[in-house]
Amino acid sequence: MNTQSPLLTDLYQLTMAQGLWLNNRADTETVFHLFFRRNPFHGNFTIAAGLEPAIEFLSKWQFTATDIEYLASLKITDDTPRFKPEFLDYLLSLKLTCYVDAVKEGTIMFPNEPLLRIKGPMLQCQLLETALLNFYNISSLIATKAARIRLAAGTDPVAEFGLRRAQGPNGGVLASRAAFIGGADSTSNVLAGQQYHIPVSGTVAHSWIMSYPTEIDAFKAAADLMGNQTVLLVDTYNTKSGVESAIKTAEYLQAKNQNLFAIRLDSGDLPELAKSSRQQLNAAGLNSVKIIASGDLDEYRIAEFKQNGAPIDMWGVGTRLVTAFDYPALDITYKLAAIRTEADWQYKMKFTDDGSKKSIPGILQIRRYTKQQQLVCDSIYNEEFGITENLPANCDESDDLLEPIFRHGELQYQSPSIFEIRDYVQRQLKLWQQHDEGKHQVHIEEQLQSFIENITN
Amino acid sequence: MNTQSPLLTDLYQLTMAQGLWLNNRADTETVFHLFFRRNPFHGNFTIAAGLEPAIEFLSKWQFTATDIEYLASLKITDDTPRFKPEFLDYLLSLKLTCYVDAVKEGTIMFPNEPLLRIKGPMLQCQLLETALLNFYNISSLIATKAARIRLAAGTDPVAEFGLRRAQGPNGGVLASRAAFIGGADSTSNVLAGQQYHIPVSGTVAHSWIMSYPTEIDAFKAAADLMGNQTVLLVDTYNTKSGVESAIKTAEYLQAKNQNLFAIRLDSGDLPELAKSSRQQLNAAGLNSVKIIASGDLDEYRIAEFKQNGAPIDMWGVGTRLVTAFDYPALDITYKLAAIRTEADWQYKMKFTDDGSKKSIPGILQIRRYTKQQQLVCDSIYNEEFGITENLPANCDESDDLLEPIFRHGELQYQSPSIFEIRDYVQRQLKLWQQHDEGKHQVHIEEQLQSFIENITN
Repeated sequence: MNTQSPLLTDLYQLTMAQGLWLNNRADTETVFHLFFRRNPFHGNFTIAAGLEPAIEFLSKWQFTATDIEYLASLKITDDTPRFKPEFLDYLLSLKLTCYVDAVKEGTIMFPNEPLLRIKGPMLQCQLLETALLNFYNISSLIATKAARIRLAAGTDPVAEFGLRRAQGPNGGVLASRAAFIGGADSTSNVLAGQQYHIPVSGTVAHSWIMSYPTEIDAFKAAADLMGNQTVLLVDTYNTKSGVESAIKTAEYLQAKNQNLFAIRLDSGDLPELAKSSRQQLNAAGLNSVKIIASGDLDEYRIAEFKQNGAPIDMWGVGTRLVTAFDYPALDITYKLAAIRTEADWQYKMKFTDDGSKKSIPGILQIRRYTKQQQLVCDSIYNEEFGITENLPANCDESDDLLEPIFRHGELQYQSPSIFEIRDYVQRQLKLWQQHDEGKHQVHIEEQLQSFIENITN
Repeated sequence: MNTQSPLLTDLYQLTMAQGLWLNNRADTETVFHLFFRRNPFHGNFTIAAGLEPAIEFLSKWQFTATDIEYLASLKITDDTPRFKPEFLDYLLSLKLTCYVDAVKEGTIMFPNEPLLRIKGPMLQCQLLETALLNFYNISSLIATKAARIRLAAGTDPVAEFGLRRAQGPNGGVLASRAAFIGGADSTSNVLAGQQYHIPVSGTVAHSWIMSYPTEIDAFKAAADLMGNQTVLLVDTYNTKSGVESAIKTAEYLQAKNQNLFAIRLDSGDLPELAKSSRQQLNAAGLNSVKIIASGDLDEYRIAEFKQNGAPIDMWGVGTRLVTAFDYPALDITYKLAAIRTEADWQYKMKFTDDGSKKSIPGILQIRRYTKQQQLVCDSIYNEEFGITENLPANCDESDDLLEPIFRHGELQYQSPSIFEIRDYVQRQLKLWQQHDEGKHQVHIEEQLQSFIENITN
């Protein structure tokens, strides 16, 4: 399925686009921000991710004749086409001319801070909304989940293998990419490995074990294949006897001057089985054989198992990571914040009866204040108003987070490698866990705050 | 992103494939079943979906030189490639020769019943596992969620508009397709409309309203565009005054001999706002103007709102449908069930210590017994053993659910249209709701049951 299509949008975006075009408002200059309202997983941070997939999409954005043909086939009533032919001609020739600014992929972010800002003709900004939200939603959500799992697992290796339960093929590929950014060490997903250069890992499945007359036959065949990398899945029939077979296989490997690397537990009471398996292995002198656990794991269970001293050395995480099982959508949104009708910008904000869905007006930028790279606080300001705040007394540096990505539709930005993004996340997480967790404050800069108070009162 | 690739798999499938090939077991004939262990959403049925996307994938399945080049670049250690060149040559020339049987898309299914059965060389069956699970997981999960929403909404129209929060672009497209199959009436997702011929629908967004100096200006501009189809989103600033503006817009339309179609509520206390908005509209003589509600809706809220008499006529469902928010992964699996080492089949089953992960051995088929099309019970049997059961006394028909899809790798099956699939689901749901809910039994046929008891005792 080809998803590189401007049709990756909601119909109402095209309806509004036609409306703008008919009213000569297509090129009215606007600013939209993409932001989230709440941290997912009831947590206190979010890892911004999705920029590189968004750049890929925007760089190739162009209606094709086939797209236009489809749009021309849509009707409002039996004899009224939904779109006017002249409007469709306009779409066919349309090139993006927007200015896009975004925070680096992997940046720790907080509610209401723009992850991406787009400035340009309202028609274009509108047509891009849905796809941008889609890319950022899954990427930021899964990167954040993976970061939480990384914090729970400490320095233990974490392998992601969720493709089979991910939501569709590129839901799976994007999830694997985001999981790596957030802190997973590898993926089982070969297509993600190919497309995003993520390290791939994996062993053998229950079917391998079941396809042999006995478990030990299957283990020896696996050992012949994998040598020093051999990992034996011991729970196909019964974990205790599975570990006994693994011990025999370790002896078989030793006779060839090789060592069993690990056993893997994939069902049952994992902490208990890890303890008893560890004892069995140690009693056989196999103290260096690792124990890998998998099966419905997430940050909560990993933290609990580690707290209870379960002797698990490595973690395999699938479904609960790639689907963000306990919080499967980021509360992400994309709001109009400024419009230039004549020479001047008018700043726009949404506010609903219950106050739950406010947005911040302006052409926003985020200034992040740090002390020895530790986050101290962020200030959201309107670039047109400027910012006059002094560096807070307890800080030694400040940075503006939104960086130029596209200028007049031209890509200006070179994405870092996925390894650099991952390292950036890990550096921030480390500082975060040591110093900032829960203490970080986001404020609205003084002039912007006064402006908001003026229009809401 | 191109996801039509045999690399859409877990690395261990390729590791095992090489192992099979090295041990001259690549062509060992096997049978695998794809099934789920539990109904999602704590419900009592699951809609099988994913067959057509799976067929698309299998029909074009073929390693390319680029795929092979990537696999050749993978290493176990710095100087040991993961795959042998001869094995990669074999993959490059590999054509699928499997026999695939599956239940019709849209069939109501129950735990442990195969949705798909694949018979063929073990190496091929193994390489296809991950992608098949991926397609079936999202499709069946979202179709089931949509069916539950359809049961809650009764005959009210339901529009799906979840693309922005779906998990990746084709996660979104597959979710929109599955939502339609399950009972949504339309999608906002234009790409899904194009690719799967699903009716598309949509109105305008908050940004449209905010881009005009006043709400009423925005409403009139929308009315000019949409005429008799005009739907006005009334909650951008304040719902009560939004409805007042909508009433003025209705008058504006009436002056042109047109009628306002609906208002849409998208935030706040929806049942309360629906009641007060209904009163406002009726007081203005606009009794025929519909009320559409949206905002974190799912089957539970729709049922609750309807029970409380909220005057809502149509439902817009997004995030909670396309992410299957409260149960975001189907407990789906793919298990080896038979292997032919010599002339005879050996039947295989997995059973773990705690009994939670059993599988049924054999070459399975499902016989469904019905009375006047109402489901009565299902019998799972081994085709090699046959089935000798009589038609239960209270039934008038029986059908075997698994149908031939591929024979020796050649497609034998013509997928019904998405409208036919949707109708099939709706017919079953109707009968199900009237007669069978919770009463349906699945049993294992007598000979198969004895066989299982023999090998587990």
